[in-house]
Amino acid sequence: MIKYYGKTISSRSQYDKIANKKCHLPKGHEGSCEEFPFLKHLYETNDRIAKKIKRDSIMTTGAAWKSEDAGPNRILRWVMLLSDKKLLKYGINMKLLKPQVVAKLREKAADYDSCIQVAIKLTWNVYQMPGAPKPTEEIKQYLESHFGALTNTTSCSICLLPLDFSLFHAAQRGKAVVETCHLDPRSHSPKNVGFAHRECNIAQGNKSIDEFYDWISGILQRARKN
Amino acid sequence: MIKYYGKTISSRSQYDKIANKKCHLPKGHEGSCEEFPFLKHLYETNDRIAKKIKRDSIMTTGAAWKSEDAGPNRILRWVMLLSDKKLLKYGINMKLLKPQVVAKLREKAADYDSCIQVAIKLTWNVYQMPGAPKPTEEIKQYLESHFGALTNTTSCSICLLPLDFSLFHAAQRGKAVVETCHLDPRSHSPKNVGFAHRECNIAQGNKSIDEFYDWISGILQRARKN
Repeated sequence: MIKYYGKTISSRSQYDKIANKKCHLPKGHEGSCEEFPFLKHLYETNDRIAKKIKRDSIMTTGAAWKSEDAGPNRILRWVMLLSDKKLLKYGINMKLLKPQVVAKLREKAADYDSCIQVAIKLTWNVYQMPGAPKPTEEIKQYLESHFGALTNTTSCSICLLPLDFSLFHAAQRGKAVVETCHLDPRSHSPKNVGFAHRECNIAQGNKSIDEFYDWISGILQRARKN
Repeated sequence: MIKYYGKTISSRSQYDKIANKKCHLPKGHEGSCEEFPFLKHLYETNDRIAKKIKRDSIMTTGAAWKSEDAGPNRILRWVMLLSDKKLLKYGINMKLLKPQVVAKLREKAADYDSCIQVAIKLTWNVYQMPGAPKPTEEIKQYLESHFGALTNTTSCSICLLPLDFSLFHAAQRGKAVVETCHLDPRSHSPKNVGFAHRECNIAQGNKSIDEFYDWISGILQRARKN
């Protein structure tokens, strides 16, 4: 794997004291520092997908958290590593939230470096989908130095059917068809993260992928006996 | 099956012209007319569950329909049988709703008599759950004349594991654990309706039960090959 330059990139975010943004270009690079250099080409060709990768990698998701007592809809994952006491200083009072909302937020916590690695992994996944644009040679090498040679397939992590790049532009009943998913919903690490059909992701729910397979296996056994 | 008295019960609802409330006590009954006589005992012992049966039987459900352009959150199922033009007279402008909301509302439409039969079926299901109260002899006979002898088990229609009455009082992350479900989500008839674990119902999604079993069977086949 390449060595990152690692220089701190200044930012106006109040959360900057928690985790400094860093340059992830290779050590000794030319030009300006960049936090997400591997997304540069995708930003130019398909900015909605690049934004999605960045957002899903670094932010918690907040389905149905939009009510008053439901807390922030999205927040940086590493902010959720802080104690309730420290969060108060940032104006986030966890004690005002329902226990189930706190649980959801807390289990999506991850450190800054894991989030960056997840973003690189998802970018690596996207470029392997049939129909995806070809990455620049520089980005190809960058991605391959992290997760191995790019192939011509990315499968849904859950149902294991191939995912086509065009699915990113599809919608069913107003919802995206492809989502970022976690083999274990309680761990945000590159090994554990991939893409899945929305319907697969919903079916897996809060189970790990092994729990999910065991669960549906039991259902089928009973259905066949019936 | 018993013959209902069938007399119209007066109501102040504006939708009364669409489907008159009817008396579902047996022909020649004594005392006042009742629309849901089979729920009377459940109302006295577990009114939350009786209300749930009535609501799920006669009203559309409206997950995530609370935004401005999302239309009515819940509406009587038979109202959704009316044309867009007729609905305008009731102040419901379907043209203002998103197509996916219209689709959801329309596929939950059902006529008045089907809704009543669904309510009877669900009540019959509830009394067969371990831990359920014992129905009065009158209600037992009423239910059995519709759907056969009461047993000691009601299973989740999807995963086929037994459902205990106590699950109605349980909640996970603020959500009920047991839901009303449809073997075919596009048909609201007694044969097609039952109870299911919320997680099973969510996993089934918009698929029919057979489509769901086929789908998870394919997933397992691929997962085992992997």
